[in-house]
Amino acid sequence: MPQHNHVEKHFMGSDFVRDIVIGMSDGLTVPFALAAGLSGAVDTTTLILTAGSAEIAAGSIAMGLGGYLAGKTDDEHYENELKREQLEVVEVPDREEEEVAEIFRGYGLEEEQVKSITSTMRKNPDQWVDFMMRFELGLEKQEPSRARNSAITIAISYIVGGLIPLMPYFFIHHPASALKVSVIVTLLALLVFGYVKGRFTGAKPWKSAIQTAVVGGLAAAVAFGLARLLS
Amino acid sequence: MPQHNHVEKHFMGSDFVRDIVIGMSDGLTVPFALAAGLSGAVDTTTLILTAGSAEIAAGSIAMGLGGYLAGKTDDEHYENELKREQLEVVEVPDREEEEVAEIFRGYGLEEEQVKSITSTMRKNPDQWVDFMMRFELGLEKQEPSRARNSAITIAISYIVGGLIPLMPYFFIHHPASALKVSVIVTLLALLVFGYVKGRFTGAKPWKSAIQTAVVGGLAAAVAFGLARLLS
Repeated sequence: MPQHNHVEKHFMGSDFVRDIVIGMSDGLTVPFALAAGLSGAVDTTTLILTAGSAEIAAGSIAMGLGGYLAGKTDDEHYENELKREQLEVVEVPDREEEEVAEIFRGYGLEEEQVKSITSTMRKNPDQWVDFMMRFELGLEKQEPSRARNSAITIAISYIVGGLIPLMPYFFIHHPASALKVSVIVTLLALLVFGYVKGRFTGAKPWKSAIQTAVVGGLAAAVAFGLARLLS
Repeated sequence: MPQHNHVEKHFMGSDFVRDIVIGMSDGLTVPFALAAGLSGAVDTTTLILTAGSAEIAAGSIAMGLGGYLAGKTDDEHYENELKREQLEVVEVPDREEEEVAEIFRGYGLEEEQVKSITSTMRKNPDQWVDFMMRFELGLEKQEPSRARNSAITIAISYIVGGLIPLMPYFFIHHPASALKVSVIVTLLALLVFGYVKGRFTGAKPWKSAIQTAVVGGLAAAVAFGLARLLS
């Protein structure tokens, strides 16, 4: 099934990019906003670095390990549905045939054509099950390494993204001065990241660049205002 | 097309649950871990509440608004692909016919059956395009309100989840004592959330409950250790 392989390959590529986008979007934004918020509330950068590092650790574990477990759940869901379909084509083949027929009737095929398709499917139970998985349930088998790779990609992207806004606080010990550098560096990073993300996801790159920077800037501004209010 | 409507409805339901799961997984975990981390590094709960609130604001904006923009990008992607397919069935119908044929050959249909299907499709360009969108590209049209609803659901779930671990710090002013209550309350909340999540996603509820609590507990433990190290 070359078509099937082609689709898998296409999905794998965009899954990797999607994982980087997921991890880095939040990694660039949340530690940035947290550090900005604390810059308006505390006098030393030690605490900002402590909180920022704790956030990066927590965020990368929550997103990475959380993503891993979600992927494992998807795998189990796929296997369970596969077993169910495999049973159903043996135990209630007429009902399953009717489900295939429904799909094709929806696309304007004549009853005679539908009958011809379903009778061919009944002769190839494996392909029949494969068809039901993909076209009735919309499920696709993932590579076994998918959940693990996804977890690692998301976690590393989150850490890399999160270290960028924190860097200035390592070198500049006055929170307000470090914040200024962090804002400039991070907004630039968000613009570049948004632009590249747009190229990969098919959005207009400049629009994506500006939207990404606006989300990060807004999150930081709200966090700053809220931290000022509370402290 | 009753089949099509059925699929849409099914997807909408699980999208709502999925959004709550996305928002609450991170909302319960990251502010919990951040507060736990800071509890080992500071002497007053004011700063933990400030950092925690800033984190909740940043996280809910990053995830909600980020999710909104991602949804809008998906909508645009769908519309662009739709226009491309609509052009292609008019401009290069033979190539498009071959793409439909490939899909069906992959499921064991005879050349004669494939020919019969493709010639019927050519008579109904709208249904043909619909078929290509769904079965070649795996794209489905979302409700226009989808991106906005998704953003609001994720953001609110993040805020609700994040306030649970922070609550004890409002009432107990000694960080170490507040942390103990926060750990108990949040682990219980993670167990309940994981259990309910398991019921909805088809995973084993108790397994899901324990996994969810372990991710939260691990994130908090690492954040606590790292904050201790750095402060």
